[in-house]
Amino acid sequence: MSGWLVVAGLGPGAEGLVTPEVRAVLAGATDIVGYAPYVARVGERPGLTLHASDNRVELDRARHALRLAAEGGRVVIVSSGDPGVFAMASALFEALEDGPAPAFEIRILPGITAMLAAAARLGAPLGHDFCAINLSDNLKPWELIERRIRLAAQADFAMAFYNPRSRARPHQFARVLEILCEECGAGRLISFARAVSTAGESLLTVPLSEARPEMADMRTVVILGSSATRQVGRWVYTPRSVSR
Amino acid sequence: MSGWLVVAGLGPGAEGLVTPEVRAVLAGATDIVGYAPYVARVGERPGLTLHASDNRVELDRARHALRLAAEGGRVVIVSSGDPGVFAMASALFEALEDGPAPAFEIRILPGITAMLAAAARLGAPLGHDFCAINLSDNLKPWELIERRIRLAAQADFAMAFYNPRSRARPHQFARVLEILCEECGAGRLISFARAVSTAGESLLTVPLSEARPEMADMRTVVILGSSATRQVGRWVYTPRSVSR
Repeated sequence: MSGWLVVAGLGPGAEGLVTPEVRAVLAGATDIVGYAPYVARVGERPGLTLHASDNRVELDRARHALRLAAEGGRVVIVSSGDPGVFAMASALFEALEDGPAPAFEIRILPGITAMLAAAARLGAPLGHDFCAINLSDNLKPWELIERRIRLAAQADFAMAFYNPRSRARPHQFARVLEILCEECGAGRLISFARAVSTAGESLLTVPLSEARPEMADMRTVVILGSSATRQVGRWVYTPRSVSR
Repeated sequence: MSGWLVVAGLGPGAEGLVTPEVRAVLAGATDIVGYAPYVARVGERPGLTLHASDNRVELDRARHALRLAAEGGRVVIVSSGDPGVFAMASALFEALEDGPAPAFEIRILPGITAMLAAAARLGAPLGHDFCAINLSDNLKPWELIERRIRLAAQADFAMAFYNPRSRARPHQFARVLEILCEECGAGRLISFARAVSTAGESLLTVPLSEARPEMADMRTVVILGSSATRQVGRWVYTPRSVSR
């Protein structure tokens, strides 16, 4: 029996947002590897082993999955959202670089990433050019994050921020809000979309002057509008056009 | 009977990438509205009217859908990919701004957008901070596109380019490649992902020095790596870390 390894995106939480392609691969797996809350989203069944791991051990997790597949396992590494957006796909390739070339098939299956699920609930805040920035400085210098935010503001991108705030980094998001106020002005719209598509979902849109760090936690995606982003009824959207 | 209006993303092409949520809403619709090739992806059935329109008539299409829903229709505007990424959701809100407040429910349902489907096939080129830029200047000045590309390069974002090249704009993408070479150097990796998840799928990754405008057409998403993007085996990926 020959093994395989798939990195699959489970989407933001709702079952209706898991693609049929991912559902099929989960049904054919022998092993599920991932951060415990994501592994818990895959139901137990005979013949399936769930390997739940802690947060921040992405490389160990990827190496473990590679070993299981090399031994003939049909292995799915599960990510929330899309595995290619601040998730497990890059960690797998980092692990691959350090090891022997795998003799089994590897595939990455996309999923609905948090910013696009959030944008859909809010309206269409990412309807024009935009960027996605991970605000965690676990894996990059804080100065780079600050520089990217300022350049993105000068480019007038809408911006989606992943991992805005955690218990380990309670103060940095306050600094991000200060920088955004300096660069974009107090009236710019900012949206906080928490736990979209799950029971804990909440949405909040305010001008930057009213934004507070406590409005975000690690389950929140924060979306900043461009200079053109506006509200119509309960919706937030960015028009397709920029006039000449 | 009360109508409703949904803007739904059909994903990049494969049936396995259409979410169950979107599939369910298509099954309950009376009217499908959209650009002809996307409407054609929804099968005909009794009780369902397909309203296929031409390209570049997004506002007319949105107004038509609003009228149908106001008359009690259960209407789905279909987009390729995700409706909030260079697609129909923003056009709907533009149409809403000009008309009376709707008395029916409106929802936006996310889909797998082209850049994430392409990234998954390539590996994980968007595995670190990135931006998405529409290269069409139909709705914005060319100078803004050029400015955004330069600032995004200075921010060292990976970049996904939508609508890189069309028959009406054959020369602009050549200019984009020149700018990218100036800003990022000839060795930077660039990937051309065409018609991902369909029978016409093709993938090509080259250094910028070897990139040619003809490598892209309107069915291609182009992904430029950041300074850290590299290849391992047949894969292209951007590591999660930037060292201090």
